[in-house]
Amino acid sequence: MKAKLKIIPLGGAGEIGKNMTLIEYDGAILVIDAGLMFPESDMLGVDIVIPDIAYLLEHRDLVRGIIITHGHEDHIGALPYVLPRINVPIYATPLTRGLIEVKLKSHKLLKDATLHTLQMHDTIQLDPFSIETFHVSHSVPDGIGLAITTPIGTVVHSGDFKFDPSPVDGQLTDFATLAEVGSRGVLALLSDSTNSDSPGHTPSEMTINESFKRVFATAQGRIIVATFASNISRIQQVIDTAVQFNRKVAIVGRSMQDNVKMATELGYMRVPDNVLVRIDQLARNEQNQMVIICTGGQGEPTSALVRMANHDHKQVTLTAGDTVILSATPIPGNEEMINRTLNNLFRAGAFVYYSELMHVHVSGHASQEEQKLLLNLVRPKFFIPVHGEYRHLVLHARLAQSIGIPAENTFIIENGTVVEFDDEGNARCSRDTVPASDVLVDGIGIGDIGSTVLRERHHLSEDGFLVALVTLDAHTGEIVFGPEIITHGFVYSETSDDLIAGAKAAITETLKDGGRGAVLSIKLKDVLSKYLFKQTHRRPMVIPVVTEL
Amino acid sequence: MKAKLKIIPLGGAGEIGKNMTLIEYDGAILVIDAGLMFPESDMLGVDIVIPDIAYLLEHRDLVRGIIITHGHEDHIGALPYVLPRINVPIYATPLTRGLIEVKLKSHKLLKDATLHTLQMHDTIQLDPFSIETFHVSHSVPDGIGLAITTPIGTVVHSGDFKFDPSPVDGQLTDFATLAEVGSRGVLALLSDSTNSDSPGHTPSEMTINESFKRVFATAQGRIIVATFASNISRIQQVIDTAVQFNRKVAIVGRSMQDNVKMATELGYMRVPDNVLVRIDQLARNEQNQMVIICTGGQGEPTSALVRMANHDHKQVTLTAGDTVILSATPIPGNEEMINRTLNNLFRAGAFVYYSELMHVHVSGHASQEEQKLLLNLVRPKFFIPVHGEYRHLVLHARLAQSIGIPAENTFIIENGTVVEFDDEGNARCSRDTVPASDVLVDGIGIGDIGSTVLRERHHLSEDGFLVALVTLDAHTGEIVFGPEIITHGFVYSETSDDLIAGAKAAITETLKDGGRGAVLSIKLKDVLSKYLFKQTHRRPMVIPVVTEL
Repeated sequence: MKAKLKIIPLGGAGEIGKNMTLIEYDGAILVIDAGLMFPESDMLGVDIVIPDIAYLLEHRDLVRGIIITHGHEDHIGALPYVLPRINVPIYATPLTRGLIEVKLKSHKLLKDATLHTLQMHDTIQLDPFSIETFHVSHSVPDGIGLAITTPIGTVVHSGDFKFDPSPVDGQLTDFATLAEVGSRGVLALLSDSTNSDSPGHTPSEMTINESFKRVFATAQGRIIVATFASNISRIQQVIDTAVQFNRKVAIVGRSMQDNVKMATELGYMRVPDNVLVRIDQLARNEQNQMVIICTGGQGEPTSALVRMANHDHKQVTLTAGDTVILSATPIPGNEEMINRTLNNLFRAGAFVYYSELMHVHVSGHASQEEQKLLLNLVRPKFFIPVHGEYRHLVLHARLAQSIGIPAENTFIIENGTVVEFDDEGNARCSRDTVPASDVLVDGIGIGDIGSTVLRERHHLSEDGFLVALVTLDAHTGEIVFGPEIITHGFVYSETSDDLIAGAKAAITETLKDGGRGAVLSIKLKDVLSKYLFKQTHRRPMVIPVVTEL
Repeated sequence: MKAKLKIIPLGGAGEIGKNMTLIEYDGAILVIDAGLMFPESDMLGVDIVIPDIAYLLEHRDLVRGIIITHGHEDHIGALPYVLPRINVPIYATPLTRGLIEVKLKSHKLLKDATLHTLQMHDTIQLDPFSIETFHVSHSVPDGIGLAITTPIGTVVHSGDFKFDPSPVDGQLTDFATLAEVGSRGVLALLSDSTNSDSPGHTPSEMTINESFKRVFATAQGRIIVATFASNISRIQQVIDTAVQFNRKVAIVGRSMQDNVKMATELGYMRVPDNVLVRIDQLARNEQNQMVIICTGGQGEPTSALVRMANHDHKQVTLTAGDTVILSATPIPGNEEMINRTLNNLFRAGAFVYYSELMHVHVSGHASQEEQKLLLNLVRPKFFIPVHGEYRHLVLHARLAQSIGIPAENTFIIENGTVVEFDDEGNARCSRDTVPASDVLVDGIGIGDIGSTVLRERHHLSEDGFLVALVTLDAHTGEIVFGPEIITHGFVYSETSDDLIAGAKAAITETLKDGGRGAVLSIKLKDVLSKYLFKQTHRRPMVIPVVTEL
């Protein structure tokens, strides 16, 4: 049987192929990206979500390397969890490599990692794969897409992209290579579906400059801009505007400082001399000549902006007359945190600009017309929409059909699905799938938290728990201790004496019926649950503990 | 001392004066609205949030009545909790009264309630208040604003409003009364700030008709429209479009059915004969002539739409070719639930239309230009922005200043703040405030859940708990039972034997040092917490229980 080409989206916590994708052919596996997701709100207590790499571990000898398309968390953030378990070479463009190095260094993993630099337009050979890179514009410089040629045909992966006609770094998407790859013939395209429900074109990053200028022109006091630490382009735009308005810039926060330093050294940021200052370097009366760039665009509780909003930041006390720009759009689930932060900023007297009020953020992802343009440039035989929730894939697939890709050549798949291509030009979803559950990281536990613990946390979060302790004489069955009640998260204990007394009475009453062991425990749990629900209409986790001594 | 006029916004869970506002003068209190909020996501396990009526209970003899501005939950939903504690007369326009009656009936409170009908333009005397009502358009018919004349001056309350030039029910905002009230002179305006961060005008409800027509014209199978049960205007629009396209309409869900029946009987909805059908009345092959209207626009877990999306609805099984319209915008905090529902609808093969894709919902609240027009019509001396989070009030106040209301005549206040007006034309915030915390309803408990229990629930939701049991001989201090560990929501027990064994060993080791009672418990808690954090980097709630027998 001849070898088949396999494409397998692997991770993304609800988004398909967002954090990792595998390309496999004839005993060789190529990994694209190794990113993380932040937990959805029902993943209680979870810190981050990473892809399941069980399949890679099982076939570790086949893995040729990991190619990273760009330096955002959702594409590099899982490396510190992946590399200790499977230390394969990483390939990345210079800025992306820089961002990876900053990250690996902070995890003390840099020394053991093998990193190779790619150019934005480059070709590398990782047999049997020949990989040609092409630049795509995005909200961070140095992003690439991939044209992966295999004996079965060429697979194009868009990376995260938009067709920005005036990117901040001046680097246009590499239309020439894309068109040429398209002319040579493409078996399959994997393309970014993030904004497939947005009609038209995504505005250029440069359109934000106009908003920044309007704000800077009228601001009286300090200007504070919050964005992602890895949003190199946005940070550059803020610095450019600050220079125009003769303001100094202070970068607050270690990760953002590290990123700016690295990007400047590599030539990806242009920062004139004497513009960057330490936040404590300017006197109080010079603060109206200052711009502060910090994290907190998602209302993250420990971010600099949120601490400023809550009067909890060591160096920055917000005052009336300060101006704050939130240069970000909410990740779904963060809206309430962001709104709370906005309210607190307004309470502090700041002038605050956010998306509803002014054009201070644009998406880094292609809208429908750009998605169609990519399809038309690449003209693939098969189309696999990736990077997006299920609805985005469906809408992207319909878009492709509207410009001539046959429905039967489109694969709307979930993580772990294997699309197989044979050498006769056929493609199909394999019946075999690859493990691709979300791996939840909580503390130092990786993957030990699953649905059972999450269900318990959910139960506890809604109604708390109640432990009922009673010790019986093993011979007589008489109560020698208790009943005692321990309860948290259920009722306010100071006003619940009657309820607790009633629960104890219910236990004592139940014990009178006799019974021992597991049967007694089940009975007590039932009696207590019913009593507590009747009294409160709440359903705490009820745990009877009967000891016999 | 002469009497002062007091204005007190009282409830709204983060929105100021949204659910209840008090007007007080010379021993008389008028209540405007009695609504509820749905809990914010950090109010774990809480069902709803209602205003604190402690001040009303303390002054129950002064309360003249409750005037309801319109029939939405956030204006009527607290009545079932307020009336049993202070049963005062309720004043409402016919449709609003109908919606209140449906609600009170379901709580078995209708018989004991005293309801009075207001006309949209009406004047009632509740001494010392003379209240003139005027119609404002909103997303439900029969909404009113109030001009409340007191010996100190006239207070205008906008209610929830937009200036819809083509409302679904044909009832324009009563500009004539507003202008006339403005000409007579207005002391203070309280105005809806919900959309004060939206420039321009809010589109008319009628603009949605075009979207509905486009969808209905091409839909092949069933059409399912999800919206709020009280959104009478939207339901009317769906029915109108269904009639145009010769489709039958099935209303799914008790509350929506009750509302439609009542609104039709009162003449607020126009439903031609033979249009409404029961969902089981049409054969399978006639289903492409059907429209289903149901709840679920917010992704509410128990709603009809969500159950359909999850293949969990008794009567409706979604199939490829069905069309779903989500005619709603997310309430902040609901985005993830809505996205999940959308994904499941797409998975079921439905064609789904939602806000990003098509204009299938408009806000019921005025945008900035409409807010300015109201200010210009009423020309108040003092301005109190209400209905909105703090940032909305600030933006609304700045808007008012931009058209000539002096900053010093504008009051940006929190719930419970008392604005006092004297008879010499002065206004100020009183140093006294009125209790106005969010009252959390959980099960049948009203207000017993506070920050302590919420903190415990939050702790439990993140890392669960661990109870350590040990029984000592009261004389010798020897262990006679245990240590035993009970833990939930912390680690997956099946793979945590070593961790639990280590915890037991730590307890035994600690007991060797001696110590009894509270000191021992504190020590055990400390030792266990440190051990567990070291092993897992998690911080469960640790509860040692040492019994001496």
